[in-house]
Amino acid sequence: MLSNHFQNGIETARLVWSRLPNTEDGEFDAVGLSKKSDGSSVESLDYEVIENYAYREEQAQRGKVYFVYQVVVKWFFALLIGIGTGLAAVFINISVENFAGWKFHLTFKIIQESYLAGFVIYVLFNLALVLSSVYIVTHFAPAAAGSGIPEIKGYLNGVDIHGILFFRTLIGKIFGSIGSVGGGLALGKEGPLVHTGACIASLLGQGGSTKYHVSSRWLQVFKSDRDRRDLVTCGCAAGVAAAFRAPVGGVLFALEEVTSWWRSQLMWRVFFTSAIVAVVVRTAMGWCKSGKCGHFGAGGFIIWDISGGQEDYSFQELLPMAVIGVIGGLLGALFNQLTLYITHWRRNYLHKKGNRVKIIEACLISLLTSLISFGLPLLRKCTPCPETDAASGIECPRPPGMYGNYVKFYCGRENEYNDLATIFFNTQDDAIRNLFSAKTIHEYSAQSLLTFLVMFYTLAVITFGSAVPAGQFVPGIMIGSTYGRLVGMFVVNFYQKLNIEEGTYALLGAASFLGGSMRMTVSLCVIMVEITNNLKLLPLIMLVLLISKAVGDAFNEGLYEEQARLRGIPLLESRPKYRMRKMMAKEACGNRKVISLPRVVKVSDVASILRSNKHNGFPVIDHTRNGETLVIGLMLRSHLLVLLQSKVDFQHSPSPCEGSGIIRHNFNEFVKPATSRGLSIDDIYLSSDDLEMYIDLAPFLNPSPYVVPEDMSLTKVYNFSASWV
Amino acid sequence: MLSNHFQNGIETARLVWSRLPNTEDGEFDAVGLSKKSDGSSVESLDYEVIENYAYREEQAQRGKVYFVYQVVVKWFFALLIGIGTGLAAVFINISVENFAGWKFHLTFKIIQESYLAGFVIYVLFNLALVLSSVYIVTHFAPAAAGSGIPEIKGYLNGVDIHGILFFRTLIGKIFGSIGSVGGGLALGKEGPLVHTGACIASLLGQGGSTKYHVSSRWLQVFKSDRDRRDLVTCGCAAGVAAAFRAPVGGVLFALEEVTSWWRSQLMWRVFFTSAIVAVVVRTAMGWCKSGKCGHFGAGGFIIWDISGGQEDYSFQELLPMAVIGVIGGLLGALFNQLTLYITHWRRNYLHKKGNRVKIIEACLISLLTSLISFGLPLLRKCTPCPETDAASGIECPRPPGMYGNYVKFYCGRENEYNDLATIFFNTQDDAIRNLFSAKTIHEYSAQSLLTFLVMFYTLAVITFGSAVPAGQFVPGIMIGSTYGRLVGMFVVNFYQKLNIEEGTYALLGAASFLGGSMRMTVSLCVIMVEITNNLKLLPLIMLVLLISKAVGDAFNEGLYEEQARLRGIPLLESRPKYRMRKMMAKEACGNRKVISLPRVVKVSDVASILRSNKHNGFPVIDHTRNGETLVIGLMLRSHLLVLLQSKVDFQHSPSPCEGSGIIRHNFNEFVKPATSRGLSIDDIYLSSDDLEMYIDLAPFLNPSPYVVPEDMSLTKVYNFSASWV
Repeated sequence: MLSNHFQNGIETARLVWSRLPNTEDGEFDAVGLSKKSDGSSVESLDYEVIENYAYREEQAQRGKVYFVYQVVVKWFFALLIGIGTGLAAVFINISVENFAGWKFHLTFKIIQESYLAGFVIYVLFNLALVLSSVYIVTHFAPAAAGSGIPEIKGYLNGVDIHGILFFRTLIGKIFGSIGSVGGGLALGKEGPLVHTGACIASLLGQGGSTKYHVSSRWLQVFKSDRDRRDLVTCGCAAGVAAAFRAPVGGVLFALEEVTSWWRSQLMWRVFFTSAIVAVVVRTAMGWCKSGKCGHFGAGGFIIWDISGGQEDYSFQELLPMAVIGVIGGLLGALFNQLTLYITHWRRNYLHKKGNRVKIIEACLISLLTSLISFGLPLLRKCTPCPETDAASGIECPRPPGMYGNYVKFYCGRENEYNDLATIFFNTQDDAIRNLFSAKTIHEYSAQSLLTFLVMFYTLAVITFGSAVPAGQFVPGIMIGSTYGRLVGMFVVNFYQKLNIEEGTYALLGAASFLGGSMRMTVSLCVIMVEITNNLKLLPLIMLVLLISKAVGDAFNEGLYEEQARLRGIPLLESRPKYRMRKMMAKEACGNRKVISLPRVVKVSDVASILRSNKHNGFPVIDHTRNGETLVIGLMLRSHLLVLLQSKVDFQHSPSPCEGSGIIRHNFNEFVKPATSRGLSIDDIYLSSDDLEMYIDLAPFLNPSPYVVPEDMSLTKVYNFSASWV
Repeated sequence: MLSNHFQNGIETARLVWSRLPNTEDGEFDAVGLSKKSDGSSVESLDYEVIENYAYREEQAQRGKVYFVYQVVVKWFFALLIGIGTGLAAVFINISVENFAGWKFHLTFKIIQESYLAGFVIYVLFNLALVLSSVYIVTHFAPAAAGSGIPEIKGYLNGVDIHGILFFRTLIGKIFGSIGSVGGGLALGKEGPLVHTGACIASLLGQGGSTKYHVSSRWLQVFKSDRDRRDLVTCGCAAGVAAAFRAPVGGVLFALEEVTSWWRSQLMWRVFFTSAIVAVVVRTAMGWCKSGKCGHFGAGGFIIWDISGGQEDYSFQELLPMAVIGVIGGLLGALFNQLTLYITHWRRNYLHKKGNRVKIIEACLISLLTSLISFGLPLLRKCTPCPETDAASGIECPRPPGMYGNYVKFYCGRENEYNDLATIFFNTQDDAIRNLFSAKTIHEYSAQSLLTFLVMFYTLAVITFGSAVPAGQFVPGIMIGSTYGRLVGMFVVNFYQKLNIEEGTYALLGAASFLGGSMRMTVSLCVIMVEITNNLKLLPLIMLVLLISKAVGDAFNEGLYEEQARLRGIPLLESRPKYRMRKMMAKEACGNRKVISLPRVVKVSDVASILRSNKHNGFPVIDHTRNGETLVIGLMLRSHLLVLLQSKVDFQHSPSPCEGSGIIRHNFNEFVKPATSRGLSIDDIYLSSDDLEMYIDLAPFLNPSPYVVPEDMSLTKVYNFSASWV
């Protein structure tokens, strides 16, 4: 019954399908099926406009040279993103390591004299850092709070959250995460680094920050959402590559977790960006080796080399490993659920009370964290050092001022160490290194590990969602490696004879918790392998991830999806929902009426139509000579607003103009700004004379929008929309 | 001008866009725009049919339980594919290693007495193996020749080459590649293993081989092309994972190189399959360690561990590394071009003369290869052993019957070795291991490396395209590591002080040649890292790959794309061509006329229409009460053929039937067989009575096919079609 639908112009309008521009508030509305299947991007429609007039014109003028120029700029930008993100990561890492280094150095020095004074210094140091972080975020860059990954995911899915890619967000993210991570909170710097990379990419794409007048018109070649999104994807990959020194992991993270619409030609460029990051980071680390970077050196970038670990496994071990996977799935799903409740409560009650509450909250969390991490080890009895194996190079207790296992803390005798302090009273990177360490069997007691697991899990849940930049990777690895090591201890006791390393189990635990919480697969697997530099464990990591993700999926969605939903970011999945199979296109429209415009429309009518609804596109109808109504194309709300604002196309007569209105417009006028709310009808002043004028929409409409028959299966329509990228 | 097109039924027909079923001969034709932008898959249309009648019916009958059953079967099949491919790889490897082991063992024993007798034995051994391989391929499984990757790529892109996934192809591939690789030809077993994995997957999907009566109806749950393609994708990944012991590389290979339309939900399953392969292969290797597998043990699976290699690099080294990238790009592009010419000549002249010519050709190549690999080292003077470093564990000359560097061959004195024999008179895996080896500076003379490079390159070009199963990975690694090591030698001489390992340069050379020839990026990078087990070289491998791919792209397309084009497989790229931007949909149709059918059509008319053209879809038109013509849907050629064959829907009167014709048909009847030519109009016998009958097409047509306006940009139409997956 295909043609039937096209007999009547108005009827057809219902079928004219309009994809929506990036919106800010995550609310969708348009002609037809918007609510169910929209939200990806405006650029198809932009391109249509481009193809229709301005673009062809510009193409003709500039031709092949401009095309080559654009490609060169794209690759140049990929280079710049790599360098910028790499340097940002180096800066953050050096700062964090130095702050944390000074803090622990000072504290350890003072506790030789007085534990109370040491505690006070420790608390104040942490408090100052956290306070600086929360102050920056609340007063300068509110969008820098949290990890930023759900927001970036949303942006790449077509939802533009206000301020997420501003210059001030970038600054807030960098300095805020130095404060929050250096201040010892139960959070990491990896999520913020991904956001940092995305910000750098987006700012480059705009040719600088317009607000701070450092933009260059020369670099503003990226006018479509697609190009901007490609840049942000590169930035994300660069962020992961820099955070974990995992270039391939970065590419895969961008591919699997962040982007909604991946194009294979982009992979090549993302790959290049990641390689640049790897080179920059490596160069900077080489430079730091000579001691120019203070405490940054042995610590710093998180590579927890477990080359000394277990390289083989027996079949009996698969069972405890599967148990780790199940625990990871359960604890990960629980983490997602708890953080969801707490964030919901924070957003709706606590944070509505203003910035002061946010600052007090962060300070309280900092105090609590300091208290627990300093106080709990004090309650723990020290353990005598094991017989040292000179070949392993591990000293017990570790020399003062060094990194390593066997921390001496509140111990009476000389050859003793405090196992709880070894993981708790330490930077997180060092704690993870100690948990992953091989050749240190029975370093930790089950009681200490269990205490740490419960306390740190609680702290991580509470800290999540406070107004500081916060990543979930490192806390996840901490939690996971703790119970992994715990399982490892049981395995060591149970299968006496096997060559089992608790550190390897800790690594598997870390993978399982991240899998159970974030639900990534290939990218997480590659990241875990890259950060531990041990390929031989790959099948085991895969196995553990498979189990933990499957277990977690039985309960809820992944952390980023849950958080995105909570923040009102309606992520469009790549796959249509099962129930769509039984629905038709018209059922998805529901009862909402399509609003159409005549070809020549009165300005006052346009204004009232734009005010009365939130539709993003309007079919334009015309009449043939024999009186039939025809849909002649689709007009976008954003383009209508541009026309209303510029006013140059207003005409006095209601008859179609014959001349072309294109010459009066520059193609740039129709381009959506990269990060702004865009025009609103309320921003436009129309005089009463203006309101009496007319506009001929014919030169501006998109004459060949996508069309689907109204009885097409919604699944097909949904899949169809995936091609508009 | 949207509605205009839908005024007239016939006019509309031009716009009804039909995606084509998998065709065998790579020739496309259908309503409208087929030639330019078609060829991906029939399954959208299949699904439409499914949605329209049979599927809904079956859904209603089976409901949720069947859905769960299907998911379980999918995962179970992924498990089976992993186990099957892993076992096949183990079998091939054990066989190849044992044949090659016996061969070299015997030859080395005999040459103690007489070099001539040794040569004869060596030649005959190789000849017998190659003869068995070519005989199997020519007489039993012609589709098993070559690497199979272009064909699999084509299959996943929607082009079904006859016989490519048959059971006999699987058998031919396994036994053929044992013969061709064991016989010492300049080819590898990796491409064939990918094909093997795909065959196993496809046979599972059909529930066994129908021809050999081992199929199970119970397992035939995969009726759509999409499900079959997913299985084959899993099989490809499993093949790579098994060939290189690179599970992540396998996933990425399937993602980047093979599949045309990747869906993220598939990644998870592919990942699982790869993990299973890794476990199976590892288990088998553990079992072989105890000496149960003959010569298979130290050799076997290609993991060229270069953990002893260079771990750091200085900035000066980036220049020679870039040179390696450029050489790789040039030699790789040249390789693609030469093999293209030779394959073209073979296909059009040599191989048309029959199987005997193919057998003689393969035997001649085997003789030539044996002659060169045995004869050239004889001409080479032996080198005195370097001062042995006991710590490195490398003996010179190597003990007889062992694998390792410093092969003693035709040497007069005791402490001498033949550097050309070390790489030439060896299995390829051992040769690569020797080329990659660290701590063996100056093992090879530049002259030997250059000789080997020229001879082996020539042999690889000549061997490519002969009628044996052949992969290009290992030859590519051989070629690349030779010139890589050559560059490394110059660097060692030039920068005296740096800690440079020639083996590391050999690895970079291998990466560069593969990049220059196959043009893969991320997957190749991961595979290189996984097979050498050295993550620290990742940025360098990335850099070299970037350069070599860019250089290669300046000359021609990747190896697989070139070969696919030569074989008449019209691969659809994911990206529309640049010139499509300026074309409209109707321009792509050209002058070809759309052929439409009335709703109730005479059988003789259907038969003559199907005979007179090759269109794959026909719009069906009907008349409204007031005489207007309407397109009521699209009828596929394959479905028409099913109707003609079954004859149950024939009716005597030319008026539309009111009852439903569905009940007479099982949904399975319309499913395309997995691997057959499908029905042809010439296969169907229609009596003269039949020809006078009528069919009402209304119950069988697809009432909501995809439609595009005729003035839509061809770029948009092309992108649109990507969603039909």
